[in-house]
Amino acid sequence: MKKISLMGATGSIGTQTLDVIREHPDEFNLTALSVGKNIDGARKMIAEFNPSLVSVQREEDAEILKKDVPLSVKVLYGEEGLVQVACHQDADILVNAVLGSVGLYPTMQAIEAGKTIAIANKETLVTAGHLVMEAARKKGVALLPVDSEHSAIFQALQGEQEKNIEKLVITASGGSFRDRTRDELVGVTVKEALNHPNWSMGAKITIDSASMMNKGLEVIEAHWLFDIPYDKIDVLQHRESIIHSMIQFHDTSVMAQLGTPDMRVPIQYALTYPDRLDRPGGKRLDLAEIGRLHFEKMDFERFRCLGFAYEAGRTGGSMTTVLNAANEAAVALFLDNKISFLGIEELIERALNEHEVIRKPDLETIREIDRRTRLTVSQWI
Amino acid sequence: MKKISLMGATGSIGTQTLDVIREHPDEFNLTALSVGKNIDGARKMIAEFNPSLVSVQREEDAEILKKDVPLSVKVLYGEEGLVQVACHQDADILVNAVLGSVGLYPTMQAIEAGKTIAIANKETLVTAGHLVMEAARKKGVALLPVDSEHSAIFQALQGEQEKNIEKLVITASGGSFRDRTRDELVGVTVKEALNHPNWSMGAKITIDSASMMNKGLEVIEAHWLFDIPYDKIDVLQHRESIIHSMIQFHDTSVMAQLGTPDMRVPIQYALTYPDRLDRPGGKRLDLAEIGRLHFEKMDFERFRCLGFAYEAGRTGGSMTTVLNAANEAAVALFLDNKISFLGIEELIERALNEHEVIRKPDLETIREIDRRTRLTVSQWI
Repeated sequence: MKKISLMGATGSIGTQTLDVIREHPDEFNLTALSVGKNIDGARKMIAEFNPSLVSVQREEDAEILKKDVPLSVKVLYGEEGLVQVACHQDADILVNAVLGSVGLYPTMQAIEAGKTIAIANKETLVTAGHLVMEAARKKGVALLPVDSEHSAIFQALQGEQEKNIEKLVITASGGSFRDRTRDELVGVTVKEALNHPNWSMGAKITIDSASMMNKGLEVIEAHWLFDIPYDKIDVLQHRESIIHSMIQFHDTSVMAQLGTPDMRVPIQYALTYPDRLDRPGGKRLDLAEIGRLHFEKMDFERFRCLGFAYEAGRTGGSMTTVLNAANEAAVALFLDNKISFLGIEELIERALNEHEVIRKPDLETIREIDRRTRLTVSQWI
Repeated sequence: MKKISLMGATGSIGTQTLDVIREHPDEFNLTALSVGKNIDGARKMIAEFNPSLVSVQREEDAEILKKDVPLSVKVLYGEEGLVQVACHQDADILVNAVLGSVGLYPTMQAIEAGKTIAIANKETLVTAGHLVMEAARKKGVALLPVDSEHSAIFQALQGEQEKNIEKLVITASGGSFRDRTRDELVGVTVKEALNHPNWSMGAKITIDSASMMNKGLEVIEAHWLFDIPYDKIDVLQHRESIIHSMIQFHDTSVMAQLGTPDMRVPIQYALTYPDRLDRPGGKRLDLAEIGRLHFEKMDFERFRCLGFAYEAGRTGGSMTTVLNAANEAAVALFLDNKISFLGIEELIERALNEHEVIRKPDLETIREIDRRTRLTVSQWI
């Protein structure tokens, strides 16, 4: 029985993590969870999974929740509550499925506490990959990828030696606007942007997919997770999202992981690694039924955010912190109908241009740059 | 420095094995080799690689060769010579690239001598898989696949547990006649059959590819190499031969090995396993350039040989010995213009129908059934 603590339980990855736990009641047990403001969601999860610790974002919600749940359930709130969930003493593994760089501090604390971490929270690695990876190395903590692309690479890496890697190939569906020209991106609506062709995901990541920033964040995430220079990370457009990513080795052999698009597969793999567990109800890949897989070069003109990400990643230091914070702020503004879709990349570009990079920022510096960038970007509107 | 003995040096796999050795002079050394009747080829190889032992098929050729090569090179002939190459005391690994069930006896002897074997000679496993695998298990000898499909599965299996395999998916280019209807197979010529769309291979395996018997032999080979029941081995038509084969695990995840069609990749992998070596001049896979990969269900009506192979495999015992021997004899007759292309499957079907299966044939029984089947099939013409 593996005991799991889950940060970000009501999000897309969070609820699918609960699906995996639900499908394997003899294997997994939910011991702690965090939610944001979805108190109704928290109530239902507590009733179903009976965790010993729950944390919510706001104090007032914690007060309300306390009255509704058994005394055996401890209810906390805020960043301190999140850290308690991240470091819960009973947990064998932490699933970090929160959204955005808010996941950074609890992740660092969980590493200090020696927790194995299944990481879906790519912003944490983008904003402070050098700190996270260094801490994980020092503590001997495993960071297991949950993103489908990084899980694919991680699976393809099993039984292989990193020295033999020639390059990583991260596949990209192309997002909601893959069939539009650059001109046709002018004036697209939030609703259109939220209509992802293959994956059912949260709003922020779906917008990131449409702008291709999601792929950019993934490139940076891959750089940190697999300790691979940016020159050895390629992005390949692949409409069907069947090949989830690949490793090309220096003998020319390419190892890939495939499957129908279902986030429960990489989530479960992170929870069962290095073993696998059956998924009796899971949809099997039927390539004869699919018939064709398509591959295209990425268009760096049309998707400028991807280029920004490579640039920021190569610059390193605090530049990726700015990239991520500016993107989070800009996407929030777009979802709020305050800026246009192409306005996202304009704000990010400006933030990157105005930033003077700090080479090896510490945690406090990163948190400060993150805060200041969000504020600045919002004030530009 | 790994010392290699090579059976079948002048064949397609043999010469490509020499390419791999040539590309890595600091890694590999050719210590022994066998050829059939290609004495000129043997001369050149001896001059280039300076092996200490060479074996040819016929005594008269051995006598001729002896006069032309340095005294330091031992020249043998016939089955005894082949066994000496297979078991050469200096060799770290034997590459068995001979054609047909003639490879069986030397393979059994190499296993007895404790040699690691890179096996390209699928007929050996088809004709007597139970004996080969049992002997290899007893002796703790590794059988490393060289066929691109089995190498792909073997690579995908690294870091994985066999208990988690749900099925193997062997891909098939479809061979020379994949775009013809059953009716259009009547009267096809040897030249047409030898025109394989993707792979440059020897005549026998190219005909086997056109009749789909090659895929059938591979299914049986996979059954033995990976200890997987026939119900868990699928064949999928994939025109481009880019995905070389796959494993589907019970969590629905599929691991695949890809690459441009180049036999030197799986040959080299068998020689370097579990490591990989660079192939600086090797063509890299460019999926964006290829654009599309196609997949189709196999047609068991049009390709009856594939069905015969599954049936013979499920029956087991001596039935696969008959399948292989009848096929070798029939393909030789077709190449000799004695029968039509569809005549191949007719002869195989008759041979299978007339055979009374022996459950656990020993080596002598298999050799006798093999001999008798070839004779019988030839006499039907």
